[in-house]
Amino acid sequence: MLYLVGLGLGDAKDITVKGLEAVRRCRRVYLEAYTSVLAVGKEALEEFYGKELILADREMVEQEADNLLKEADVCDVAFLVVGDPFGATTHSDLVLRAVKLGIPYKVIHNASIMNAVGCCGLQLYNFGETVSVVFWTDTWQPESFFDKIEKNRQNGMHTLCLLDIKVKEQSLENLMKGRKIYEPPRYMTVNQAAEQLLAIIQNRRLQGLKTDPMFQSGSLGLAEDLQGGMRREPDGASGRRLEERGVEQCSFSRSSKQDHKPAKGIKKDLKSGRDCKV
Amino acid sequence: MLYLVGLGLGDAKDITVKGLEAVRRCRRVYLEAYTSVLAVGKEALEEFYGKELILADREMVEQEADNLLKEADVCDVAFLVVGDPFGATTHSDLVLRAVKLGIPYKVIHNASIMNAVGCCGLQLYNFGETVSVVFWTDTWQPESFFDKIEKNRQNGMHTLCLLDIKVKEQSLENLMKGRKIYEPPRYMTVNQAAEQLLAIIQNRRLQGLKTDPMFQSGSLGLAEDLQGGMRREPDGASGRRLEERGVEQCSFSRSSKQDHKPAKGIKKDLKSGRDCKV
Repeated sequence: MLYLVGLGLGDAKDITVKGLEAVRRCRRVYLEAYTSVLAVGKEALEEFYGKELILADREMVEQEADNLLKEADVCDVAFLVVGDPFGATTHSDLVLRAVKLGIPYKVIHNASIMNAVGCCGLQLYNFGETVSVVFWTDTWQPESFFDKIEKNRQNGMHTLCLLDIKVKEQSLENLMKGRKIYEPPRYMTVNQAAEQLLAIIQNRRLQGLKTDPMFQSGSLGLAEDLQGGMRREPDGASGRRLEERGVEQCSFSRSSKQDHKPAKGIKKDLKSGRDCKV
Repeated sequence: MLYLVGLGLGDAKDITVKGLEAVRRCRRVYLEAYTSVLAVGKEALEEFYGKELILADREMVEQEADNLLKEADVCDVAFLVVGDPFGATTHSDLVLRAVKLGIPYKVIHNASIMNAVGCCGLQLYNFGETVSVVFWTDTWQPESFFDKIEKNRQNGMHTLCLLDIKVKEQSLENLMKGRKIYEPPRYMTVNQAAEQLLAIIQNRRLQGLKTDPMFQSGSLGLAEDLQGGMRREPDGASGRRLEERGVEQCSFSRSSKQDHKPAKGIKKDLKSGRDCKV
């Protein structure tokens, strides 16, 4: 049996009771570690679950999924995903493969940023299409996420922006030369995302194109996280919580205390660097 | 301290470990019982949590919220919500009141149908505005949910339709006469929702108005639930799982077994009466 277990968004205890029972029952437990990272490290999870976790990176999940599934055919295997298992396409793919191979599976749902974002006070009903703000490179600077935010605005909808995460990525040079040397992990901050958005606005202005009046003021709507579960960067500059999406992340800059007050005014100036943007 | 604890969507064990610890720590535990109903009854929850639960109906939550909060000022109080606590406006309101009264609170998130719907195979990214299909009366037959579905279609987005739930509602006569006599609970089935949608299409055709080509074929996109946690109706006709939204529900007609296969073709004919509609 293959168990796809959502871990929620905070720490080790955000797993459901059902999920924890499944994990403890399994002979092998994989922790999906490339679409998202939990606030607490692998060791904290291992200690709480009482199980050794096998880190599953993109290469492993995408290339060796069939081996993982073969194991699931003979014993209980758990595949742990931060947030909810069906946030990322990759995991739907794993299920489809399991079905093809006739391997039974169970899904154990959990909170995802797709619903937990409701804690900022904005109605979940009124969110339009979710967008991914991807890291620009020198040669690849897509603007499609901006168009989607603008479209949502025109329809009176909020936008949840998931910020890019680059884990175990190769430089173009290393990729070309087939060298398995990986770049240090990168997690987009809200400031970086905002810089890209401002650059798009600037581009369009230079081209004489119109943008939504909201974007004229130079401010973007940013909401702060109302929940704990933070991760401290090595530089201690900002806490950050990652999410379960494909190559995305939602980061937060609040301190790690759990008691909090609801967002009264969720719009903050760009410069304040608040992280979970809606 | 006031704890707002999401219970998830299935049974007693879908609570998170953190949530369960909070519930067991609290002196008083309320179970919100009017925006949604869990697959298992109150007794099953009480047995698993080891706590007596106080059923909180709409009247209680809306009229006596301040009393509930006064308790939370002197002892630990938990407020349990099926799904995630921030699905329904009511619960945001409770938090705002707590803040006003200076009462600390913690939110413990869980899966909501807003994210768990991803299990049907449709990408969560591509959902537009969520709609509520409300029970029509003889004198009130709103069509706004249809307009929103059509708008989402035009934008290439899926729509999650939450189906109405009427719990502890008074008839107009009893309401006028101030008699606290309540109607039996009603949960909209997908067939009922589809009947209303078809009636709208019919109305618009008679008026010579255009509707989306999808609606011409007489079929609607329906997806079946891929997760367990069903509730059997007294007549045994269909299993059904309810959700945490204001006056809404998402119901399912699958059997209660947990092992399942993913939806291969998620579109089903209207007549088949599959319940979780996306």
